[in-house]
Amino acid sequence: MLIRDARPDDLAAFAPIFRQVVDDGETYAYPEGLTDDEIRGLWFERPPGRTVVAVDDAGTVLGSAKMGPNRPGRGAHVATASFMVGAAARGHGVGRALGEEMLRWAGEQGYAAVQFNAVVESNTAAVALWKDLGFEVLTTVPAAFESRSHGRVGLHVMHRLL
Amino acid sequence: MLIRDARPDDLAAFAPIFRQVVDDGETYAYPEGLTDDEIRGLWFERPPGRTVVAVDDAGTVLGSAKMGPNRPGRGAHVATASFMVGAAARGHGVGRALGEEMLRWAGEQGYAAVQFNAVVESNTAAVALWKDLGFEVLTTVPAAFESRSHGRVGLHVMHRLL
Repeated sequence: MLIRDARPDDLAAFAPIFRQVVDDGETYAYPEGLTDDEIRGLWFERPPGRTVVAVDDAGTVLGSAKMGPNRPGRGAHVATASFMVGAAARGHGVGRALGEEMLRWAGEQGYAAVQFNAVVESNTAAVALWKDLGFEVLTTVPAAFESRSHGRVGLHVMHRLL
Repeated sequence: MLIRDARPDDLAAFAPIFRQVVDDGETYAYPEGLTDDEIRGLWFERPPGRTVVAVDDAGTVLGSAKMGPNRPGRGAHVATASFMVGAAARGHGVGRALGEEMLRWAGEQGYAAVQFNAVVESNTAAVALWKDLGFEVLTTVPAAFESRSHGRVGLHVMHRLL
């Protein structure tokens, strides 16, 4: 597995992963039914942000992460990031590799911390991974996410100093 | 004082308030030096969001609030809002009136709760106002805002059920 900067032509491979993750209804509060152009606008970051893809040895896109300042202006010293891994590639360390690359990059860029604004509390694999990578849950906003299978569940605000 | 829906021609009066608030460097993590068009894009909401202005008896814009879903999709049942009051009008209840109108509207629209994602902890007037209107501080993200006069201070996540 290789993690590299996303290229414009990765959109064709990533868009189905994005739609699958959103349609699953368990992890992200993005709208359903977005066009490729809308997915590009939401996921493919321009500097100071960055989008990467994880690809296998054959070059197939397994997942992606986007990262950058959580807020502009006087909040731009705190990073944020989002991650999606295709269903077929889960459980093989893709999310962890993307998370580690994000932390490396954010440290190199001089961010003081990383904040995740909305980690679905019932997404236990993600919560466990981020805790393992040094994040703590600052709070859980009650009933803020309408999970397809669990109903309204909380959204964790997670945070890690760099 | 009257609170009414913002009209396109309110931009000319609101843009200087926006720039003054941002340039003060104490309450908002927006970029400095935005054009009127950029301010329109950031502040003048389209449905399902809404932007209102508070005007005095002469029709002068004293402040503004924007409101709408905090997240799209599976997070769209929680509202958020932002508020700016011009320096000359502060201390006269404009923020409170805007906040009360936001709560009325959000309840009418069927939102389950209101979440403020980033209330600067050193903005004690705002924090006290929101507590008085029933909000609680869920957490304070440490050192997430670069205040011009206080250095890095925390950002409160504040929340109120409707």
